[in-house]
Amino acid sequence: MDRDRILLTPGPLTTTLRTKLAMLKDWGSWDADFNAITAGLRTRLLDVVHGRDTHVLVPLQGSGTFSVEAAVATLVPRSGHVLVPDNGAYCKRAAKLTQMMGRKATVVPFAEDVPVSADAVEKRLRADPSVTHVLLVHCETGTGVENPLAEVAAVCERHGKGLIVDAMSSFGALPIDARTIRFDALVAASGKCLEGVPGMGFVFLRRAVLDACAGNSQSLAMDLHDQHFYMEKTGQWRFTPPTHVVAALAEAVAQFVEEGGQPARLRRYADNCSTLVEGMGALGFKPFLKPQIQAPIIVTFHAPGHAAYDFKRFYEAAKQRGFILYPGKLTQIETFRVGCIGAIGRNEMQQAVNAVGDALREMGIPSGAPAL
Amino acid sequence: MDRDRILLTPGPLTTTLRTKLAMLKDWGSWDADFNAITAGLRTRLLDVVHGRDTHVLVPLQGSGTFSVEAAVATLVPRSGHVLVPDNGAYCKRAAKLTQMMGRKATVVPFAEDVPVSADAVEKRLRADPSVTHVLLVHCETGTGVENPLAEVAAVCERHGKGLIVDAMSSFGALPIDARTIRFDALVAASGKCLEGVPGMGFVFLRRAVLDACAGNSQSLAMDLHDQHFYMEKTGQWRFTPPTHVVAALAEAVAQFVEEGGQPARLRRYADNCSTLVEGMGALGFKPFLKPQIQAPIIVTFHAPGHAAYDFKRFYEAAKQRGFILYPGKLTQIETFRVGCIGAIGRNEMQQAVNAVGDALREMGIPSGAPAL
Repeated sequence: MDRDRILLTPGPLTTTLRTKLAMLKDWGSWDADFNAITAGLRTRLLDVVHGRDTHVLVPLQGSGTFSVEAAVATLVPRSGHVLVPDNGAYCKRAAKLTQMMGRKATVVPFAEDVPVSADAVEKRLRADPSVTHVLLVHCETGTGVENPLAEVAAVCERHGKGLIVDAMSSFGALPIDARTIRFDALVAASGKCLEGVPGMGFVFLRRAVLDACAGNSQSLAMDLHDQHFYMEKTGQWRFTPPTHVVAALAEAVAQFVEEGGQPARLRRYADNCSTLVEGMGALGFKPFLKPQIQAPIIVTFHAPGHAAYDFKRFYEAAKQRGFILYPGKLTQIETFRVGCIGAIGRNEMQQAVNAVGDALREMGIPSGAPAL
Repeated sequence: MDRDRILLTPGPLTTTLRTKLAMLKDWGSWDADFNAITAGLRTRLLDVVHGRDTHVLVPLQGSGTFSVEAAVATLVPRSGHVLVPDNGAYCKRAAKLTQMMGRKATVVPFAEDVPVSADAVEKRLRADPSVTHVLLVHCETGTGVENPLAEVAAVCERHGKGLIVDAMSSFGALPIDARTIRFDALVAASGKCLEGVPGMGFVFLRRAVLDACAGNSQSLAMDLHDQHFYMEKTGQWRFTPPTHVVAALAEAVAQFVEEGGQPARLRRYADNCSTLVEGMGALGFKPFLKPQIQAPIIVTFHAPGHAAYDFKRFYEAAKQRGFILYPGKLTQIETFRVGCIGAIGRNEMQQAVNAVGDALREMGIPSGAPAL
């Protein structure tokens, strides 16, 4: 039967019907009714990080990566120097886009199975005073590891460095409090833990650094300073907004608030994650990360060691049973990933585990255990 | 009653329910089913310009302006020089984004109420051999004027210059044939004459210039060369696609084909336009442009000369009657604009004219005639 599949991916993810139904209306992008949606969204998102007094929220068209690039382009002056602690694919991407736009970027490498070390970042800041900004990926979805945001933020504050946070896959689920964690920019997107549909990102910019951002961006479309002040003045987006995506996000955020905000969302995702890890463990699967550094966002599993295993067949067998898995992103060892986020709960996770078990049986694989 | 209003705007515009219903499903962005939608869309869009042999189609997240910026960033080398014939706001924006990214841009000014002159462009190309590209806005929605694409393309070909066309508001409605008109890049977006929802743009790139584009872009997110080759290799978008917007566009394009493609769409929009202009004329309103240079996309009208006229009140009175108008974009004289595009026909245009008449009566304005 043609039934919608559950997306166990790091976004786009499964959204509620209520969120999708918000897209059944066309909005005039210049109209006051639509401006009110944008304004309400900006305020509600600021509330998620308790940032009304310290930050502004600037939405931007495009995927999350567009917003990361926009944050760097807007915040970092052309003579700036960005330090990127790197423990995965999204860290590397952030360093790459920084270099491409002509800003100096220095990568501090870490192993993919451990969090970034705030001490190591501090050492590099001491060693190289030319660094102006640190760019931290909060939850590296390449593996699923959570990086120590509060500790790195404290280091940056102590050394008077700017901090740009890619909180794409953590925002809304992991706690981020602008009253205690100082960041200059924090980036997330519609189609992640807020459970909206993909198509826009947004950046929290610290008010104290806003004025210094004027003229930094070499991109018109990605100039968040310009986007912000135009929006303050007119209530409108500078360029055509993805109106349906914006309306869906507003509806998704309303449900986020009704559910109990970030603490409730974290509880549900943590429950999804433990249901998944326990169930997969009973089938023999082994997570790539140690439990204490595993964010409840996406779990990387070692591929089964059995000779009959093939990711494409495994993926198709799970898909036929109604669940969309996600490929691994590690180059050295074979893995696959399973997302814990989206409009799903323990039921869906248990059904997913059952489907994975059925898929293994179909493939003649007695256990998900990795090769020794 | 809470009834959806008709958007008489240059996009976002009114879409069919069938198009919107395509958004009631969540897609895995890595999944083969979604890749098939993207692939089908790319082919069908190439067919609209008869470009399968000569061009590739590269979709891009974000609004249309993001795609214009991406086209310039990808096509124009850092030492390039772009000539921008300017008869309106979108021409000025294109010149601005070109300069911001560090490319030289020279503006050739024209009056806002006349089309760009291909002869004048040719003179400038003769006078300044350092020009590498011409950037032409096909239909300048600031006023609604249609610029001579075929003539300017012939001039560019004769002088061996690249041509970038912003066809945002003309693509799908006005005829553009890649077999007879040579362009290096042509840019449009989902939420315009194809009648999709806003959230993505797309760029036709000429195969012959594709290889020379490698390494031009200083923006990772906007690098169309990279986007294209990654998509060719994997079938996927490089960064999270706006899945619901893509699905809606595929559904909109299916309806476009069923309606009879570009010729049928042009007929409907031309009928919308003449219904509007005749009806508004009977109320005393005067279009800003002469009929022979008026594209049937959006019509700029002079504001009524009567002392009781106020755009905000007029806009609200029309909105209460179910129609969303659009403000003027001219700085010297007071105007307003009415779009002829979207999933609407003669009926809706006549009802809009009737509503405008009712609005005038409510405001105590006997005629829409402009001040002398």
